[in-house]
Amino acid sequence: MDNIIVQKYGGTSVATPERIKNVAMRIINLKKEGKNIVVVVSAMGDTTDDLIELAHQITSNPPSRELDMLLATGEQVSIALLAMAIESMGQDVISLTASQVGIYTDNIHTRARIMDINTERILEELNKDRIVIVAGFQGINEFNDITTLGRGGSDTTAVALASVLNAEMCEILTDVDGVYTADPRIVFNSKKLDTITYEEMLELATLGAKVLHPRSVELAWQYDVPLMVRSSFNEGEGTIVTNMKLENDRVVSGVACDKNVAKASIYGVPSRAGVAYKIFSALADNGIDVDMIVQNMTRDGKTDISFTIAKENLNETSKVLKKVSEELESDGVTFESGLAKVSIVGAGMINHPGVAARMFEALYELGINIELITTSDIKVSCLVKEDRAEEAVRKLHDVFELENI
Amino acid sequence: MDNIIVQKYGGTSVATPERIKNVAMRIINLKKEGKNIVVVVSAMGDTTDDLIELAHQITSNPPSRELDMLLATGEQVSIALLAMAIESMGQDVISLTASQVGIYTDNIHTRARIMDINTERILEELNKDRIVIVAGFQGINEFNDITTLGRGGSDTTAVALASVLNAEMCEILTDVDGVYTADPRIVFNSKKLDTITYEEMLELATLGAKVLHPRSVELAWQYDVPLMVRSSFNEGEGTIVTNMKLENDRVVSGVACDKNVAKASIYGVPSRAGVAYKIFSALADNGIDVDMIVQNMTRDGKTDISFTIAKENLNETSKVLKKVSEELESDGVTFESGLAKVSIVGAGMINHPGVAARMFEALYELGINIELITTSDIKVSCLVKEDRAEEAVRKLHDVFELENI
Repeated sequence: MDNIIVQKYGGTSVATPERIKNVAMRIINLKKEGKNIVVVVSAMGDTTDDLIELAHQITSNPPSRELDMLLATGEQVSIALLAMAIESMGQDVISLTASQVGIYTDNIHTRARIMDINTERILEELNKDRIVIVAGFQGINEFNDITTLGRGGSDTTAVALASVLNAEMCEILTDVDGVYTADPRIVFNSKKLDTITYEEMLELATLGAKVLHPRSVELAWQYDVPLMVRSSFNEGEGTIVTNMKLENDRVVSGVACDKNVAKASIYGVPSRAGVAYKIFSALADNGIDVDMIVQNMTRDGKTDISFTIAKENLNETSKVLKKVSEELESDGVTFESGLAKVSIVGAGMINHPGVAARMFEALYELGINIELITTSDIKVSCLVKEDRAEEAVRKLHDVFELENI
Repeated sequence: MDNIIVQKYGGTSVATPERIKNVAMRIINLKKEGKNIVVVVSAMGDTTDDLIELAHQITSNPPSRELDMLLATGEQVSIALLAMAIESMGQDVISLTASQVGIYTDNIHTRARIMDINTERILEELNKDRIVIVAGFQGINEFNDITTLGRGGSDTTAVALASVLNAEMCEILTDVDGVYTADPRIVFNSKKLDTITYEEMLELATLGAKVLHPRSVELAWQYDVPLMVRSSFNEGEGTIVTNMKLENDRVVSGVACDKNVAKASIYGVPSRAGVAYKIFSALADNGIDVDMIVQNMTRDGKTDISFTIAKENLNETSKVLKKVSEELESDGVTFESGLAKVSIVGAGMINHPGVAARMFEALYELGINIELITTSDIKVSCLVKEDRAEEAVRKLHDVFELENI
């Protein structure tokens, strides 16, 4: 089937009956343009958090299968209400749960991964000229049990559906207009990008830009799904995420800032095989996500390893790392919070050496000390004191002339 | 499988996390007695009403398929929470939606009827020594769409499950201790009945005793499912509803009173075939439930027909009946509210003539005018002024010596 558009509306866009009606009108307008529309919806507003809170009133450690059973109701409510709104405006529509569509996942409750999607029912309904509303964030496993996809789940549902349906576009409708060169609340002359590559978007997503979840960008990249980020509150064109090579003159596409950062270091670790493995597998076993990792040079057979984590994991990390430090007979551990990660991202960086140096120079001019540095092909990230971060972002936006992009 | 008990907990019993935990403890205690337990739960407290209200904020006339999609979330939330509570107390448990069990219904959304139940998954889980929690009130149709069963739905789910599982008992746990000879709020020396026949229970249910929905009693009767009504707040034995013939000396088992009554009459209707059909099909087409129906004798080729309806349907009934009256060229219509239906019920009545007469005598002694009379094999109902109804109930309880039952 041609002309398929998958749209995804987040929780904010469907937080009230009024907003649901607005979304319904918008979808109907798109339908009038002759599109075959599949809509993925999240739970209304704070519903998911409220349900988790309810579960915690029952038990501090809710079993994950039952938590998924509970959480999946949030999206089921939104799809029913959105379908009602659309039908009341005279347009044929049907809502479908993940079970009804056949969105099959693995068995890992609360963070399941999509394995396969059956397109039969959706295509059947589209062929009846109906708008199809699908519950995001959920799936079913081989036992016919309900699973949920974890963070970024609804975006992932939308991208996965766009992929299996060969949609011409997967639109992620959200409360921002698109992807900006920097957070407009920090940099007042930041610009909305018309296009961005998957790779850049992925880096930005991981760097704290809340626009798209990295997981959905990764999936879109892998299956070549054209993605658009746009506002659900106005009709403006958003930012298209594609595979297109950008013109060479765009070296840096954006500056990002993640303030939710703490640093942990283990120093004087005997430098031998398996040390890094021991440290980071211990953290992973405790469910702690690690971001930047830096290992300094070895001196006298000993090395220092630093890494960053989300602020809220600092206590847990401290416990784990102290234990590991004893086992490894390292000299000790240190921790620091109140930090921020400032990054520049751009696919053009690969062909332009010296970009990192210009970044370090800019920070030096501001007298900002850099605590850690990591780089990738299209990104340079520096860990700095949190209270200097916004200043750094503005300076970098300026230095790389992003206001003229 | 032997030793299966099906328990059903209503919305009041699971209205808060605290109550859900109490219910969980109760179920675990029963499990320790060696029972195989299937629990049917309703939505928490007023959830269903809240969801309906939410739907009406979207549209005044929500499409029934989507309404079912919405309402079914209420029970899904309760089964997940109850399963969490039970699991957190160390007992193996699993919650199942109607779709996961395979509770198949017809296609009539919002008041579907159960056609078939697949016992495979439930028995499989019971064989793993798990408690099985099933969502009441819901089913799926041949298209894999979610349906709801309408009023009395969860009771019906429980009875239907008890039937297909050959359960030794279907316990309906509610906020009353059992079935009483009369409403204890009206008659202070009313007695809880140890047993009652399906037929008596059915009459009482239709007569306004809120304990059990007539539909579930009918189903239990049809499939010989032993039913017990008992309190969810204490461990006392309730009332068993069975096929057992009662001893002959119990002529009247209970007095019931339904205050939600209005009367409508159409008078001077040409007495010809199809008149009653026209009147009552017009009402049915408008979704108005009619209770007592009385047609008086024909005089001069004309007849009068009276019937009772729920108070809240009076306006709608008035509109419909006026239209029908014009079409039938009857002499006119009258309406009256502020009425109550007082009934006596007893399987022993069949063999004891004169019971109705004693009822009329009792009302006469109180100077209460009877507006309508209907009778069945095991029931006599009189329509009286609402403000005299409680007095009538007390007098009848007294006359038939129900305090000594």
